[in-house]
Amino acid sequence: MFSAQTYQERRTALKANMGSGILLFLGNIENPVNFEHNPYYFRQDSTYLYYFGIQEPRIAAVIDIDENKTIIFGDELSIDDIVWLGRQETLKEKSIKSGVQETLPYTELSKYIQKAQASNRKVHYLPPYQSSNKILLGELLGIKIAELQPSVEMIKAIVKQRSVKEAQEIEQIEQAINVSNEMHLLAMRMVKPGVKEYEIANAIQYLAANKECQMSYPPIVTINGGILHNHYRLNTLKSGDLFLNDSGAETAMGYAGDLTRTFPVDTTFSTKQKEMYEVVLNAFENAQRLLKPGVKFKDIHLKASQYLVEGLIDLGLMKGNPEEAVKNNAHTLFFQCGLGHMMGLDVHDMEDLGEQYIGYTEEEPKDTQTFGLKSLRLGKALEPGFVVTVEPGIYMIPELIDIWQAENKNADFINYDKVNEYRNFGGVRVEDDFLITNDGYRLLGNGLIKTVAEIENYRTEHLA
Amino acid sequence: MFSAQTYQERRTALKANMGSGILLFLGNIENPVNFEHNPYYFRQDSTYLYYFGIQEPRIAAVIDIDENKTIIFGDELSIDDIVWLGRQETLKEKSIKSGVQETLPYTELSKYIQKAQASNRKVHYLPPYQSSNKILLGELLGIKIAELQPSVEMIKAIVKQRSVKEAQEIEQIEQAINVSNEMHLLAMRMVKPGVKEYEIANAIQYLAANKECQMSYPPIVTINGGILHNHYRLNTLKSGDLFLNDSGAETAMGYAGDLTRTFPVDTTFSTKQKEMYEVVLNAFENAQRLLKPGVKFKDIHLKASQYLVEGLIDLGLMKGNPEEAVKNNAHTLFFQCGLGHMMGLDVHDMEDLGEQYIGYTEEEPKDTQTFGLKSLRLGKALEPGFVVTVEPGIYMIPELIDIWQAENKNADFINYDKVNEYRNFGGVRVEDDFLITNDGYRLLGNGLIKTVAEIENYRTEHLA
Repeated sequence: MFSAQTYQERRTALKANMGSGILLFLGNIENPVNFEHNPYYFRQDSTYLYYFGIQEPRIAAVIDIDENKTIIFGDELSIDDIVWLGRQETLKEKSIKSGVQETLPYTELSKYIQKAQASNRKVHYLPPYQSSNKILLGELLGIKIAELQPSVEMIKAIVKQRSVKEAQEIEQIEQAINVSNEMHLLAMRMVKPGVKEYEIANAIQYLAANKECQMSYPPIVTINGGILHNHYRLNTLKSGDLFLNDSGAETAMGYAGDLTRTFPVDTTFSTKQKEMYEVVLNAFENAQRLLKPGVKFKDIHLKASQYLVEGLIDLGLMKGNPEEAVKNNAHTLFFQCGLGHMMGLDVHDMEDLGEQYIGYTEEEPKDTQTFGLKSLRLGKALEPGFVVTVEPGIYMIPELIDIWQAENKNADFINYDKVNEYRNFGGVRVEDDFLITNDGYRLLGNGLIKTVAEIENYRTEHLA
Repeated sequence: MFSAQTYQERRTALKANMGSGILLFLGNIENPVNFEHNPYYFRQDSTYLYYFGIQEPRIAAVIDIDENKTIIFGDELSIDDIVWLGRQETLKEKSIKSGVQETLPYTELSKYIQKAQASNRKVHYLPPYQSSNKILLGELLGIKIAELQPSVEMIKAIVKQRSVKEAQEIEQIEQAINVSNEMHLLAMRMVKPGVKEYEIANAIQYLAANKECQMSYPPIVTINGGILHNHYRLNTLKSGDLFLNDSGAETAMGYAGDLTRTFPVDTTFSTKQKEMYEVVLNAFENAQRLLKPGVKFKDIHLKASQYLVEGLIDLGLMKGNPEEAVKNNAHTLFFQCGLGHMMGLDVHDMEDLGEQYIGYTEEEPKDTQTFGLKSLRLGKALEPGFVVTVEPGIYMIPELIDIWQAENKNADFINYDKVNEYRNFGGVRVEDDFLITNDGYRLLGNGLIKTVAEIENYRTEHLA
């Protein structure tokens, strides 16, 4: 946990932003795997972590702005619990570490909410993502799940606050990234013909676990990098394959890292692999240099797309004017997704609160129709203290190529004959995490090798 | 998957047991960790696995006995899905492997159920344990979650069938146990002063993952074995500690293993540790020999308790007549839980369907009041084909000792002075998994060392 003062200050700032009403925070509840008493590992809700820091299932909290009270709701262990679970720090003790003096039994929460509703006071709550909290919220408020109305005012106030990271949060994020760096170096030492994808995934997870970290998301560890969300891991690596590793650690306090590296299963890149990799790396480096306060991330996304197009023109897969190609969305045959997203206590930071509020503004809402842009999670102007990922890529998707070619789509910009020579090439992505500073950006963590020469040298040395 | 014939035969037997109506099966849905698109690893519902074998989230099935139809409900991938997830085996193809010819989109399920309800046909369903399926069932049936009425008839028919394991299921269980054996041997090679509990937990999980296994439950890997459900893993092992490892693998098809071994952090047992261990081991071996069809597991539990008492009398912690001590529940100061449980597709097999139906009968229902017996999951007479765990233990729980002593509880059977000399001793448990055969029992798996000499020799050899 951070200091009690940290949580108090965060709550004070939130109260000031909200003005009035009751703010309701639900911690997460354990999720059963195959029966109630066999749960998945517990992960506290990120907003709960941000304002209270307590990692316990089945607790809640109320900030009653009108009555100037903050209460944590939850049950202390009974003697029966102590027999089975051992004596532990009490909820009262944990609450005090969070700067909260008042605790009440969990069952008191519904009485508190009902009383507030009876006196027509506004109860603000966030959109539930776990089904258990959907049910609980419905019960607490006495309405159907379909009728839940999360508070836009509360969402906006929280997003505003959580988007700008404190120095101690940056430290946590860098800790997550440095473990992620080690995971990626381990993969670079292990990848060779004959190894299975899941062996790499297991090894990096083991490394992280021994540093008391979870995975911040299910790792994508694949020789089919053209499949964007590939979680199939039974393939055996073979000479000639390109290997993509998109994985990151999450610290014990809940902060995420998110990195991607792509390299050949052989020790050296083939000409084709090297050329394609450098197109992506060039787009990455140019995009990175554009990071600074006031610049819209959507514009950086489009600029990066243009760098990708320029590279693909050099390789003969595209043609024509790069700017025009991007305007016509021709790049989305190769780059179907977004350039990056916010990162913090969640790998897609605050995504549970609604992408529109995290990544966009009312004046410039998300484009939910256009292929490519509809997958861009962050579009708005950057601010100092934001932490973002930058992750351009080129993905050869045979099904998509066939559809576009059948329609002769964007034929002014695409050389389909040449593209078909690459249809089974797979995918390349390069991803790092950045802090937006007052005048630009700073790469977070100790840095991870990424040029062709760096990767080839490292692998040659370690696979010798 | 097993053969299509296997699933067909299982469904045919179930239909014959049920007679009429519509049997509704819900597969599991992915559980979000901290936002919707960041899920925990997917685990299919065990009953769904048993009758259909398909490991996909968000699918369901109906066996319509009256109309002699079996339908799998679920959605095929769209081209958008294929772009993100790659081309995969279709649901239709998977259904055929399960022996089901008819598939329908997921949205058709609610229409099917509504139509059946409109014509007053009985829809049987099982108790939901995941919140997502509670919500879904309420929606499908048009009732509140609190009003759900799972079908006791369906539960009983399924329990009857799943309780008796097929030869191919035994093979799967033995595969899980053999991986579990390796996990335990690895722990025996790693445990020494200075190592942290979580390092052992991580290593055994890594070993299992490389054999394509999950954990069948969160491992209990602790130097405080007296805490029965101890998941705290930050302690550093030190000389003099007793180490308890309760962990098991789950195969890719979903079958569980469940083993416990206890041994000292030092290479050899101290006299006190050895004496206590052998009390438990003796109870274990005697309990094992009592396993056979027709014998009530509750009686074996009570016999094992008596063996524990006899051993504790020899060591001076108890006194008086062992049979009388057990009748008076005096053994529960040391053995607070049950001797074992059914095991199969779940480590506590079918526990989601209700303990009363799995482990007891209407004539002899579970004792839900008496300390000790209320934690015994299995009480009824054994039958050939049952797979059960046997896991006696002795647990020193300071809080419980203090409460009993303050009440002078069972003072005729307990030497509190002597007990207090052991109050920080921790816990000892020995656990193996058995098949009930026609005339007795068979230890499942290749066997794992468990005598003091075996463990000391193995550890001396590997820690040298």
